[in-house]
Amino acid sequence: MRIAYQGEPGAYSEAAALRYSDHADLIACESFEQVFAAVAEGRVSHGILPVENSVGGSIHRNYDLLLEHDLPIVGEVQIVITHNLMALPGTRIDQLTRVFSHPQALAQCERFLRTLPHVKVEATYDTAGSAKLVRDQQLAGGAAIASERAAQVFGLEILRPGIQDFADNITRFIIVSRVAEDDRAADKTTVVFSLPNEPGALFKALSVFALRDIDLSKIESRPIRGRAWEYLFYVDLPLGRHDPRCARALVHLAEFARSLRTLGSYPSWKSREAAPASQV
Amino acid sequence: MRIAYQGEPGAYSEAAALRYSDHADLIACESFEQVFAAVAEGRVSHGILPVENSVGGSIHRNYDLLLEHDLPIVGEVQIVITHNLMALPGTRIDQLTRVFSHPQALAQCERFLRTLPHVKVEATYDTAGSAKLVRDQQLAGGAAIASERAAQVFGLEILRPGIQDFADNITRFIIVSRVAEDDRAADKTTVVFSLPNEPGALFKALSVFALRDIDLSKIESRPIRGRAWEYLFYVDLPLGRHDPRCARALVHLAEFARSLRTLGSYPSWKSREAAPASQV
Repeated sequence: MRIAYQGEPGAYSEAAALRYSDHADLIACESFEQVFAAVAEGRVSHGILPVENSVGGSIHRNYDLLLEHDLPIVGEVQIVITHNLMALPGTRIDQLTRVFSHPQALAQCERFLRTLPHVKVEATYDTAGSAKLVRDQQLAGGAAIASERAAQVFGLEILRPGIQDFADNITRFIIVSRVAEDDRAADKTTVVFSLPNEPGALFKALSVFALRDIDLSKIESRPIRGRAWEYLFYVDLPLGRHDPRCARALVHLAEFARSLRTLGSYPSWKSREAAPASQV
Repeated sequence: MRIAYQGEPGAYSEAAALRYSDHADLIACESFEQVFAAVAEGRVSHGILPVENSVGGSIHRNYDLLLEHDLPIVGEVQIVITHNLMALPGTRIDQLTRVFSHPQALAQCERFLRTLPHVKVEATYDTAGSAKLVRDQQLAGGAAIASERAAQVFGLEILRPGIQDFADNITRFIIVSRVAEDDRAADKTTVVFSLPNEPGALFKALSVFALRDIDLSKIESRPIRGRAWEYLFYVDLPLGRHDPRCARALVHLAEFARSLRTLGSYPSWKSREAAPASQV
Protein backbone atom coordinates (compact mmCIF):
# COMPACT_ATOMS: atom_id res chain seq x y z
CA MET A 1 0.00 0.00 0.00
CA ARG A 2 1.31 3.42 -1.02
CA ILE A 3 -0.57 6.41 0.36
CA ALA A 4 -0.19 9.98 -0.91
CA TYR A 5 -0.85 12.82 1.58
CA GLN A 6 -0.66 16.61 1.44
CA GLY A 7 2.05 18.38 3.38
CA GLU A 8 5.57 17.89 4.66
CA PRO A 9 6.59 14.95 6.84
CA GLY A 10 5.12 15.69 10.27
CA ALA A 11 1.83 16.92 8.76
CA TYR A 12 -1.35 15.73 10.47
CA SER A 13 -2.28 13.99 7.22
CA GLU A 14 0.84 11.85 7.56
CA ALA A 15 -0.19 10.83 11.08
CA ALA A 16 -3.67 9.97 9.76
CA ALA A 17 -2.16 7.82 6.97
CA LEU A 18 -0.09 5.89 9.53
CA ARG A 19 -3.20 5.44 11.63
CA TYR A 20 -4.95 3.97 8.59
CA SER A 21 -2.10 1.60 7.80
CA ASP A 22 1.08 1.61 9.86
CA HIS A 23 3.11 -0.32 7.26
CA ALA A 24 2.21 1.73 4.16
CA ASP A 25 4.71 3.70 2.09
CA LEU A 26 3.85 7.38 2.45
CA ILE A 27 4.32 9.88 -0.36
CA ALA A 28 4.29 13.63 0.47
CA CYS A 29 2.51 15.92 -2.02
CA GLU A 30 2.40 19.71 -2.20
CA SER A 31 -1.35 20.10 -2.66
CA PHE A 32 -4.65 18.25 -2.39
CA GLU A 33 -4.83 18.35 -6.21
CA GLN A 34 -1.54 16.47 -6.38
CA VAL A 35 -2.82 13.80 -3.98
CA PHE A 36 -5.81 13.19 -6.27
CA ALA A 37 -3.54 13.20 -9.34
CA ALA A 38 -1.12 10.69 -7.79
CA VAL A 39 -4.00 8.26 -7.19
CA ALA A 40 -5.64 8.86 -10.58
CA GLU A 41 -2.36 8.24 -12.41
CA GLY A 42 -1.61 5.08 -10.43
CA ARG A 43 1.58 6.38 -8.79
CA VAL A 44 0.09 5.42 -5.42
CA SER A 45 -2.66 2.99 -4.44
CA HIS A 46 -4.45 5.38 -2.07
CA GLY A 47 -4.73 9.04 -1.16
CA ILE A 48 -5.69 10.49 2.22
CA LEU A 49 -7.52 13.82 2.51
CA PRO A 50 -8.90 15.83 5.44
CA VAL A 51 -12.59 16.56 4.96
CA GLU A 52 -13.72 17.95 8.28
CA ASN A 53 -12.44 19.29 11.58
CA SER A 54 -14.64 19.35 14.67
CA VAL A 55 -13.70 22.98 15.39
CA GLY A 56 -12.95 24.52 12.00
CA GLY A 57 -15.60 22.78 9.90
CA SER A 58 -15.42 21.19 6.46
CA ILE A 59 -12.47 21.40 4.10
CA HIS A 60 -14.58 22.28 1.07
CA ARG A 61 -11.81 22.07 -1.46
CA ASN A 62 -11.70 18.32 -1.00
CA TYR A 63 -15.45 18.02 -1.53
CA ASP A 64 -14.99 19.87 -4.82
CA LEU A 65 -12.07 17.66 -5.84
CA LEU A 66 -14.01 14.47 -5.03
CA LEU A 67 -16.53 15.59 -7.59
CA GLU A 68 -13.97 16.43 -10.27
CA HIS A 69 -12.37 13.00 -10.01
CA ASP A 70 -13.79 9.52 -10.21
CA LEU A 71 -11.97 8.02 -7.23
CA PRO A 72 -14.17 6.09 -4.77
CA ILE A 73 -13.94 6.69 -1.02
CA VAL A 74 -12.83 3.38 0.52
CA GLY A 75 -12.33 4.33 4.15
CA GLU A 76 -12.07 7.01 6.80
CA VAL A 77 -9.82 7.85 9.75
CA GLN A 78 -10.16 10.26 12.66
CA ILE A 79 -7.27 11.66 14.65
CA VAL A 80 -7.12 13.97 17.64
CA ILE A 81 -5.24 17.16 16.80
CA THR A 82 -2.69 18.49 19.28
CA HIS A 83 -1.10 21.75 18.20
CA ASN A 84 2.27 22.81 19.60
CA LEU A 85 4.16 26.09 19.47
CA MET A 86 7.74 25.40 18.32
CA ALA A 87 10.85 27.42 17.49
CA LEU A 88 14.61 27.13 17.08
CA PRO A 89 16.18 25.48 20.16
CA GLY A 90 16.91 27.96 22.96
CA THR A 91 14.16 30.43 21.95
CA ARG A 92 11.99 31.89 24.74
CA ILE A 93 8.29 32.72 24.20
CA ASP A 94 8.91 36.41 25.02
CA GLN A 95 11.42 36.60 22.14
CA LEU A 96 8.85 35.64 19.49
CA THR A 97 7.84 38.21 16.87
CA ARG A 98 6.14 36.00 14.24
CA VAL A 99 4.05 32.82 14.31
CA PHE A 100 3.44 30.76 11.15
CA SER A 101 0.88 28.07 10.43
CA HIS A 102 -2.01 26.94 8.24
CA PRO A 103 -5.07 29.22 8.59
CA GLN A 104 -7.15 26.38 10.12
CA ALA A 105 -4.47 25.73 12.77
CA LEU A 106 -4.22 29.46 13.51
CA ALA A 107 -8.00 29.63 13.91
CA GLN A 108 -7.93 26.64 16.26
CA CYS A 109 -5.37 28.38 18.52
CA GLU A 110 -6.96 31.82 18.39
CA ARG A 111 -7.42 32.29 22.14
CA PHE A 112 -3.84 31.23 22.82
CA LEU A 113 -2.52 33.56 20.12
CA ARG A 114 -4.36 36.48 21.71
CA THR A 115 -2.12 36.01 24.77
CA LEU A 116 0.85 36.91 22.51
CA PRO A 117 -0.18 40.44 21.54
CA HIS A 118 3.15 41.57 20.07
CA VAL A 119 3.47 38.61 17.73
CA LYS A 120 2.55 38.85 14.04
CA VAL A 121 0.46 35.88 12.91
CA GLU A 122 1.20 34.71 9.34
CA ALA A 123 -0.75 32.16 7.32
CA THR A 124 1.06 29.47 5.33
CA TYR A 125 -0.10 26.50 3.27
CA ASP A 126 0.87 23.80 5.77
CA THR A 127 1.49 23.23 9.50
CA ALA A 128 4.60 21.06 9.12
CA GLY A 129 5.70 23.32 6.25
CA SER A 130 5.78 26.20 8.75
CA ALA A 131 8.14 24.20 10.98
CA LYS A 132 10.29 23.57 7.90
CA LEU A 133 10.26 27.30 7.08
CA VAL A 134 11.47 28.25 10.58
CA ARG A 135 14.24 25.61 10.36
CA ASP A 136 15.28 26.28 6.72
CA GLN A 137 15.45 30.04 7.17
CA GLN A 138 16.79 29.75 10.77
CA LEU A 139 14.19 32.33 11.80
CA ALA A 140 15.18 33.67 15.22
CA GLY A 141 11.97 35.09 16.73
CA GLY A 142 9.84 32.96 14.41
CA ALA A 143 7.66 30.09 15.64
CA ALA A 144 5.46 27.48 13.96
CA ILE A 145 2.26 25.78 15.10
CA ALA A 146 2.43 22.11 14.14
CA SER A 147 2.47 18.52 15.40
CA GLU A 148 4.96 17.07 17.87
CA ARG A 149 6.37 14.95 15.06
CA ALA A 150 7.00 18.08 12.93
CA ALA A 151 9.14 19.43 15.78
CA GLN A 152 11.17 16.20 15.74
CA VAL A 153 11.47 16.10 11.95
CA PHE A 154 12.68 19.70 11.70
CA GLY A 155 14.72 19.84 14.93
CA LEU A 156 12.61 22.50 16.65
CA GLU A 157 11.93 22.86 20.35
CA ILE A 158 8.35 22.82 21.65
CA LEU A 159 7.85 26.00 23.68
CA ARG A 160 4.25 25.24 24.60
CA PRO A 161 2.45 21.92 23.92
CA GLY A 162 -1.30 21.52 23.37
CA ILE A 163 -2.14 25.14 22.55
CA GLN A 164 -5.43 24.40 20.74
CA ASP A 165 -8.40 26.29 22.22
CA PHE A 166 -10.66 23.24 22.42
CA ALA A 167 -9.60 19.82 23.70
CA ASP A 168 -12.20 18.13 21.50
CA ASN A 169 -10.28 18.91 18.29
CA ILE A 170 -10.63 16.01 15.88
CA THR A 171 -10.01 15.85 12.12
CA ARG A 172 -11.74 13.32 9.90
CA PHE A 173 -9.91 12.11 6.79
CA ILE A 174 -11.18 10.04 3.87
CA ILE A 175 -9.14 7.52 1.91
CA VAL A 176 -9.64 7.41 -1.85
CA SER A 177 -8.50 4.69 -4.24
CA ARG A 178 -8.54 4.22 -8.00
CA VAL A 179 -10.76 1.14 -7.75
CA ALA A 180 -13.65 0.37 -5.42
CA GLU A 181 -12.77 -2.15 -2.71
CA ASP A 182 -14.86 -4.97 -1.28
CA ASP A 183 -17.64 -3.05 0.45
CA ARG A 184 -19.46 -5.91 2.20
CA ALA A 185 -18.27 -4.57 5.57
CA ALA A 186 -19.32 -1.01 4.67
CA ASP A 187 -21.52 0.75 7.22
CA LYS A 188 -21.23 4.28 5.85
CA THR A 189 -22.11 5.72 2.43
CA THR A 190 -21.37 9.18 1.07
CA VAL A 191 -23.57 10.60 -1.69
CA VAL A 192 -23.83 13.91 -3.52
CA PHE A 193 -26.95 15.18 -5.27
CA SER A 194 -28.49 18.23 -6.86
CA LEU A 195 -32.17 19.15 -6.84
CA PRO A 196 -34.67 20.81 -9.11
CA ASN A 197 -34.99 24.52 -8.35
CA GLU A 198 -38.44 24.37 -6.76
CA PRO A 199 -39.88 25.05 -3.29
CA GLY A 200 -39.54 22.24 -0.78
CA ALA A 201 -37.05 20.25 -2.88
CA LEU A 202 -34.51 19.93 -0.06
CA PHE A 203 -37.21 18.90 2.39
CA LYS A 204 -38.39 16.19 -0.03
CA ALA A 205 -34.81 14.97 -0.43
CA LEU A 206 -34.32 14.62 3.31
CA SER A 207 -37.67 12.88 3.64
CA VAL A 208 -36.43 9.85 1.66
CA PHE A 209 -34.03 9.24 4.55
CA ALA A 210 -36.26 10.35 7.44
CA LEU A 211 -39.17 8.17 6.29
CA ARG A 212 -36.83 5.15 6.56
CA ASP A 213 -35.39 6.21 9.95
CA ILE A 214 -31.99 6.85 8.40
CA ASP A 215 -30.26 9.48 10.52
CA LEU A 216 -28.52 12.39 8.85
CA SER A 217 -26.54 14.38 11.35
CA LYS A 218 -25.02 16.69 8.77
CA ILE A 219 -25.58 18.08 5.30
CA GLU A 220 -22.99 20.00 3.38
CA SER A 221 -23.90 22.32 0.52
CA ARG A 222 -21.50 23.51 -2.17
CA PRO A 223 -22.21 25.88 -5.05
CA ILE A 224 -22.68 24.53 -8.55
CA ARG A 225 -20.11 26.45 -10.56
CA GLY A 226 -21.51 28.62 -13.27
CA ARG A 227 -25.07 28.38 -11.84
CA ALA A 228 -25.32 31.11 -9.22
CA TRP A 229 -27.12 30.15 -5.99
CA GLU A 230 -27.72 26.52 -6.98
CA TYR A 231 -26.18 23.87 -4.78
CA LEU A 232 -24.86 20.36 -4.57
CA PHE A 233 -25.65 18.58 -1.32
CA TYR A 234 -23.30 16.06 0.28
CA VAL A 235 -24.61 13.66 2.93
CA ASP A 236 -23.10 10.76 4.88
CA LEU A 237 -25.51 7.89 5.51
CA PRO A 238 -24.87 5.56 8.48
CA LEU A 239 -25.44 2.42 6.35
CA GLY A 240 -23.64 0.48 3.64
CA ARG A 241 -24.97 0.93 0.11
CA HIS A 242 -26.15 -2.73 0.06
CA ASP A 243 -28.34 -2.29 3.11
CA PRO A 244 -31.91 -2.45 1.74
CA ARG A 245 -32.98 0.75 3.54
CA CYS A 246 -30.06 2.66 2.06
CA ALA A 247 -30.55 1.21 -1.42
CA ARG A 248 -34.28 2.02 -1.39
CA ALA A 249 -33.76 5.54 -0.09
CA LEU A 250 -31.29 6.25 -2.92
CA VAL A 251 -33.65 4.83 -5.57
CA HIS A 252 -36.38 7.06 -4.10
CA LEU A 253 -34.10 10.11 -4.16
CA ALA A 254 -33.16 9.39 -7.78
CA GLU A 255 -36.84 9.72 -8.73
CA PHE A 256 -36.69 13.49 -8.38
CA ALA A 257 -33.03 14.53 -7.89
CA ARG A 258 -31.44 16.25 -10.88
CA SER A 259 -28.26 14.27 -10.27
CA LEU A 260 -27.19 11.66 -7.73
CA ARG A 261 -23.81 10.03 -7.32
CA THR A 262 -22.46 7.65 -4.69
CA LEU A 263 -18.94 8.76 -3.79
CA GLY A 264 -18.19 5.63 -1.79
CA SER A 265 -19.46 3.00 0.65
CA TYR A 266 -16.92 2.00 3.29
CA PRO A 267 -16.33 0.92 6.89
CA SER A 268 -16.80 3.87 9.23
CA TRP A 269 -13.93 4.76 11.54
CA LYS A 270 -16.05 3.67 14.51
CA SER A 271 -16.47 0.15 13.11
CA ARG A 272 -12.83 0.02 12.05
CA GLU A 273 -11.60 0.99 15.51
CA ALA A 274 -13.84 -1.66 17.07
CA ALA A 275 -12.60 -4.45 14.73
CA PRO A 276 -9.83 -6.83 15.88
CA ALA A 277 -6.41 -5.55 14.76
CA SER A 278 -5.83 -8.45 12.37
CA GLN A 279 -8.75 -7.37 10.22
CA VAL A 280 -7.62 -3.75 9.96
CA MET B 1 -23.18 56.58 7.30
CA ARG B 2 -19.68 55.17 7.95
CA ILE B 3 -19.05 51.67 6.68
CA ALA B 4 -16.09 49.50 7.69
CA TYR B 5 -14.85 46.89 5.17
CA GLN B 6 -12.01 44.39 5.08
CA GLY B 7 -9.14 44.95 2.69
CA GLU B 8 -7.21 47.71 1.00
CA PRO B 9 -8.88 50.40 -1.14
CA GLY B 10 -9.82 48.60 -4.36
CA ALA B 11 -11.03 45.48 -2.49
CA TYR B 12 -14.31 43.96 -3.70
CA SER B 13 -15.76 44.73 -0.25
CA GLU B 14 -15.15 48.42 -0.91
CA ALA B 15 -17.08 48.18 -4.20
CA ALA B 16 -19.91 46.41 -2.38
CA ALA B 17 -20.02 49.15 0.28
CA LEU B 18 -20.30 51.81 -2.45
CA ARG B 19 -23.05 49.78 -4.06
CA TYR B 20 -24.88 49.78 -0.73
CA SER B 21 -24.50 53.51 -0.22
CA ASP B 22 -22.57 55.65 -2.69
CA HIS B 23 -22.19 58.58 -0.29
CA ALA B 24 -20.96 56.71 2.79
CA ASP B 25 -17.55 57.21 4.40
CA LEU B 26 -15.58 54.01 3.96
CA ILE B 27 -13.10 52.75 6.54
CA ALA B 28 -10.58 50.06 5.52
CA CYS B 29 -9.86 47.33 8.11
CA GLU B 30 -7.21 44.61 8.11
CA SER B 31 -9.46 41.70 9.06
CA PHE B 32 -13.10 40.63 9.33
CA GLU B 33 -12.64 40.66 13.13
CA GLN B 34 -11.68 44.32 12.96
CA VAL B 35 -14.78 45.14 10.90
CA PHE B 36 -16.99 43.58 13.60
CA ALA B 37 -15.00 45.37 16.33
CA ALA B 38 -15.32 48.77 14.59
CA VAL B 39 -19.12 48.39 14.53
CA ALA B 40 -19.37 46.99 18.07
CA GLU B 41 -17.29 49.86 19.47
CA GLY B 42 -19.30 52.50 17.58
CA ARG B 43 -16.39 53.77 15.46
CA VAL B 44 -18.54 53.17 12.37
CA SER B 45 -22.29 52.86 11.90
CA HIS B 46 -22.14 49.78 9.65
CA GLY B 47 -19.85 46.95 8.61
CA ILE B 48 -19.93 45.04 5.32
CA LEU B 49 -18.87 41.40 5.11
CA PRO B 50 -18.78 38.84 2.29
CA VAL B 51 -20.74 35.73 3.25
CA GLU B 52 -20.98 33.76 0.03
CA ASN B 53 -19.58 33.53 -3.47
CA SER B 54 -21.47 31.73 -6.23
CA VAL B 55 -18.33 29.82 -7.27
CA GLY B 56 -16.26 29.46 -4.09
CA GLY B 57 -19.06 28.94 -1.57
CA SER B 58 -19.60 30.38 1.89
CA ILE B 59 -17.11 32.47 3.82
CA HIS B 60 -17.52 30.54 7.05
CA ARG B 61 -15.42 32.80 9.19
CA ASN B 62 -18.09 35.48 8.92
CA TYR B 63 -20.83 33.06 9.97
CA ASP B 64 -18.76 32.28 13.07
CA LEU B 65 -18.18 35.98 13.78
CA LEU B 66 -21.89 36.78 13.41
CA LEU B 67 -22.51 34.37 16.25
CA GLU B 68 -19.78 35.75 18.49
CA HIS B 69 -21.15 39.28 18.18
CA ASP B 70 -24.57 40.72 18.78
CA LEU B 71 -24.78 42.88 15.65
CA PRO B 72 -28.00 42.53 13.63
CA ILE B 73 -27.91 42.05 9.86
CA VAL B 74 -29.70 45.06 8.36
CA GLY B 75 -29.16 44.55 4.65
CA GLU B 76 -27.42 42.69 1.84
CA VAL B 77 -25.65 43.52 -1.43
CA GLN B 78 -24.57 41.41 -4.39
CA ILE B 79 -21.83 42.36 -6.82
CA VAL B 80 -20.48 40.66 -9.91
CA ILE B 81 -16.80 39.80 -9.49
CA THR B 82 -14.41 40.53 -12.36
CA HIS B 83 -10.86 39.43 -11.67
CA ASN B 84 -7.97 40.99 -13.57
CA LEU B 85 -4.30 40.06 -13.88
CA MET B 86 -2.17 43.14 -13.17
CA ALA B 87 1.52 43.98 -12.88
CA LEU B 88 3.96 46.90 -12.98
CA PRO B 89 3.48 48.95 -16.18
CA GLY B 90 5.37 47.55 -19.15
CA THR B 91 5.38 43.93 -17.89
CA ARG B 92 4.55 41.17 -20.43
CA ILE B 93 2.66 38.01 -19.41
CA ASP B 94 5.60 35.81 -20.47
CA GLN B 95 7.85 37.65 -17.99
CA LEU B 96 5.74 36.68 -14.98
CA THR B 97 7.20 34.33 -12.36
CA ARG B 98 4.80 34.84 -9.43
CA VAL B 99 1.08 35.59 -9.07
CA PHE B 100 -0.38 36.79 -5.76
CA SER B 101 -3.98 36.91 -4.58
CA HIS B 102 -6.48 35.79 -1.95
CA PRO B 103 -7.03 31.98 -1.98
CA GLN B 104 -10.69 32.42 -3.09
CA ALA B 105 -9.65 34.60 -6.03
CA LEU B 106 -6.92 32.13 -7.00
CA ALA B 107 -9.47 29.30 -6.86
CA GLN B 108 -11.85 31.30 -9.07
CA CYS B 109 -9.14 31.74 -11.72
CA GLU B 110 -7.78 28.22 -11.53
CA ARG B 111 -8.24 27.33 -15.20
CA PHE B 112 -6.61 30.53 -16.32
CA LEU B 113 -3.68 30.02 -13.93
CA ARG B 114 -3.09 26.56 -15.38
CA THR B 115 -2.28 28.28 -18.70
CA LEU B 116 0.72 29.90 -16.92
CA PRO B 117 2.64 26.74 -15.97
CA HIS B 118 5.94 28.42 -15.01
CA VAL B 119 4.36 30.89 -12.64
CA LYS B 120 4.37 30.31 -8.88
CA VAL B 121 0.96 31.00 -7.33
CA GLU B 122 1.11 32.55 -3.85
CA ALA B 123 -1.80 33.08 -1.46
CA THR B 124 -2.20 36.36 0.39
CA TYR B 125 -4.85 37.77 2.71
CA ASP B 126 -6.41 40.18 0.25
CA THR B 127 -6.88 40.79 -3.49
CA ALA B 128 -6.22 44.55 -3.44
CA GLY B 129 -3.48 43.92 -0.86
CA SER B 130 -1.71 41.79 -3.49
CA ALA B 131 -1.78 44.74 -5.90
CA LYS B 132 -0.33 46.91 -3.13
CA LEU B 133 2.39 44.31 -2.50
CA VAL B 134 3.46 44.30 -6.17
CA ARG B 135 3.52 48.10 -6.22
CA ASP B 136 5.18 48.62 -2.78
CA GLN B 137 7.91 46.07 -3.43
CA GLN B 138 8.16 47.00 -7.15
CA LEU B 139 8.06 43.27 -7.95
CA ALA B 140 9.24 42.81 -11.53
CA GLY B 141 7.85 39.45 -12.65
CA GLY B 142 5.16 39.60 -9.97
CA ALA B 143 1.45 39.97 -10.74
CA ALA B 144 -1.71 40.34 -8.65
CA ILE B 145 -5.27 39.20 -9.26
CA ALA B 146 -7.64 41.96 -8.15
CA SER B 147 -10.33 44.42 -9.22
CA GLU B 148 -9.94 47.05 -11.94
CA ARG B 149 -10.11 49.71 -9.24
CA ALA B 150 -7.19 48.09 -7.38
CA ALA B 151 -5.11 48.50 -10.56
CA GLN B 152 -6.00 52.20 -10.65
CA VAL B 153 -5.37 52.73 -6.93
CA PHE B 154 -1.94 51.08 -7.04
CA GLY B 155 -0.85 52.20 -10.51
CA LEU B 156 -0.65 48.75 -12.05
CA GLU B 157 -1.34 47.78 -15.64
CA ILE B 158 -4.01 45.19 -16.44
CA LEU B 159 -2.37 42.47 -18.53
CA ARG B 160 -5.51 40.39 -18.89
CA PRO B 161 -9.03 41.47 -17.83
CA GLY B 162 -11.83 39.13 -16.74
CA ILE B 163 -9.72 36.05 -16.00
CA GLN B 164 -12.28 34.34 -13.70
CA ASP B 165 -13.19 30.82 -14.86
CA PHE B 166 -16.95 31.36 -14.62
CA ALA B 167 -18.80 34.42 -15.86
CA ASP B 168 -21.52 33.91 -13.27
CA ASN B 169 -19.23 34.91 -10.39
CA ILE B 170 -21.22 36.85 -7.79
CA THR B 171 -20.42 37.63 -4.17
CA ARG B 172 -23.11 38.30 -1.61
CA PHE B 173 -22.31 40.66 1.29
CA ILE B 174 -24.26 41.38 4.46
CA ILE B 175 -24.39 44.71 6.27
CA VAL B 176 -24.31 44.66 10.07
CA SER B 177 -25.15 47.50 12.42
CA ARG B 178 -25.02 48.05 16.17
CA VAL B 179 -28.75 48.59 16.36
CA ALA B 180 -31.61 46.96 14.51
CA GLU B 181 -33.14 49.19 11.83
CA ASP B 182 -36.77 49.60 10.86
CA ASP B 183 -37.58 46.17 9.42
CA ARG B 184 -41.08 46.77 8.10
CA ALA B 185 -39.76 46.49 4.54
CA ALA B 186 -37.84 43.30 5.38
CA ASP B 187 -38.44 40.34 3.06
CA LYS B 188 -35.55 38.15 4.19
CA THR B 189 -34.68 36.73 7.61
CA THR B 190 -31.53 34.89 8.66
CA VAL B 191 -31.69 32.52 11.62
CA VAL B 192 -29.27 30.11 13.29
CA PHE B 193 -30.30 27.11 15.37
CA SER B 194 -28.98 23.96 17.00
CA LEU B 195 -30.87 20.72 17.40
CA PRO B 196 -31.12 17.89 19.91
CA ASN B 197 -28.81 15.03 18.98
CA GLU B 198 -31.53 12.59 17.90
CA PRO B 199 -32.50 10.87 14.63
CA GLY B 200 -34.59 12.95 12.27
CA ALA B 201 -34.02 16.24 14.11
CA LEU B 202 -32.87 18.10 10.99
CA PHE B 203 -35.79 16.76 8.98
CA LYS B 204 -38.19 17.97 11.68
CA ALA B 205 -36.55 21.39 11.66
CA LEU B 206 -36.95 21.75 7.90
CA SER B 207 -40.54 20.59 8.14
CA VAL B 208 -41.57 23.74 10.09
CA PHE B 209 -40.72 25.68 6.93
CA ALA B 210 -41.86 23.15 4.33
CA LEU B 211 -45.28 22.69 5.97
CA ARG B 212 -45.82 26.46 5.55
CA ASP B 213 -44.54 26.52 1.96
CA ILE B 214 -41.51 28.58 2.98
CA ASP B 215 -38.74 27.83 0.51
CA LEU B 216 -35.24 27.12 1.78
CA SER B 217 -32.80 27.00 -1.07
CA LYS B 218 -29.76 26.60 1.15
CA ILE B 219 -28.70 25.42 4.56
CA GLU B 220 -25.28 26.02 6.02
CA SER B 221 -23.88 23.89 8.85
CA ARG B 222 -21.02 24.93 11.13
CA PRO B 223 -19.45 22.92 13.93
CA ILE B 224 -20.27 23.74 17.55
CA ARG B 225 -16.86 24.31 19.09
CA GLY B 226 -15.96 21.91 21.85
CA ARG B 227 -18.76 19.49 20.90
CA ALA B 228 -17.35 17.24 18.18
CA TRP B 229 -19.71 16.49 15.28
CA GLU B 230 -22.56 18.65 16.54
CA TYR B 231 -23.67 21.52 14.33
CA LEU B 232 -25.27 24.90 14.12
CA PHE B 233 -27.53 25.42 11.11
CA TYR B 234 -27.89 28.75 9.34
CA VAL B 235 -30.85 29.36 7.04
CA ASP B 236 -32.12 32.33 5.05
CA LEU B 237 -35.91 32.60 4.91
CA PRO B 238 -37.53 34.51 2.00
CA LEU B 239 -39.85 36.45 4.35
CA GLY B 240 -39.62 39.25 6.91
CA ARG B 241 -39.76 38.20 10.56
CA HIS B 242 -43.16 39.91 10.96
CA ASP B 243 -44.77 37.88 8.21
CA PRO B 244 -47.17 35.55 10.06
CA ARG B 245 -45.88 32.43 8.24
CA CYS B 246 -42.31 33.25 9.22
CA ALA B 247 -43.21 34.13 12.81
CA ARG B 248 -45.22 30.92 13.23
CA ALA B 249 -42.52 28.74 11.69
CA LEU B 250 -39.95 30.15 14.11
CA VAL B 251 -42.22 29.63 17.14
CA HIS B 252 -42.74 26.06 15.93
CA LEU B 253 -38.97 25.54 15.51
CA ALA B 254 -38.35 26.91 19.01
CA GLU B 255 -40.55 24.13 20.43
CA PHE B 256 -37.81 21.58 19.86
CA ALA B 257 -34.61 23.41 18.81
CA ARG B 258 -31.91 23.50 21.49
CA SER B 259 -31.20 27.10 20.55
CA LEU B 260 -32.65 29.54 18.02
CA ARG B 261 -31.50 33.07 17.25
CA THR B 262 -32.61 35.55 14.59
CA LEU B 263 -29.51 37.22 13.16
CA GLY B 264 -31.48 39.81 11.25
CA SER B 265 -34.55 40.62 9.15
CA TYR B 266 -33.85 42.96 6.25
CA PRO B 267 -34.70 43.94 2.66
CA SER B 268 -33.23 41.39 0.26
CA TRP B 269 -30.94 42.64 -2.48
CA LYS B 270 -33.55 41.74 -5.06
CA SER B 271 -36.17 44.00 -3.44
CA ARG B 272 -33.60 46.76 -2.86
CA GLU B 273 -32.55 46.73 -6.51
CA ALA B 274 -36.18 46.90 -7.59
CA ALA B 275 -37.00 49.87 -5.31
CA PRO B 276 -36.96 53.44 -6.68
CA ALA B 277 -33.57 55.08 -6.07
CA SER B 278 -34.97 57.64 -3.62
CA GLN B 279 -35.86 54.91 -1.17
CA VAL B 280 -32.47 53.22 -1.27
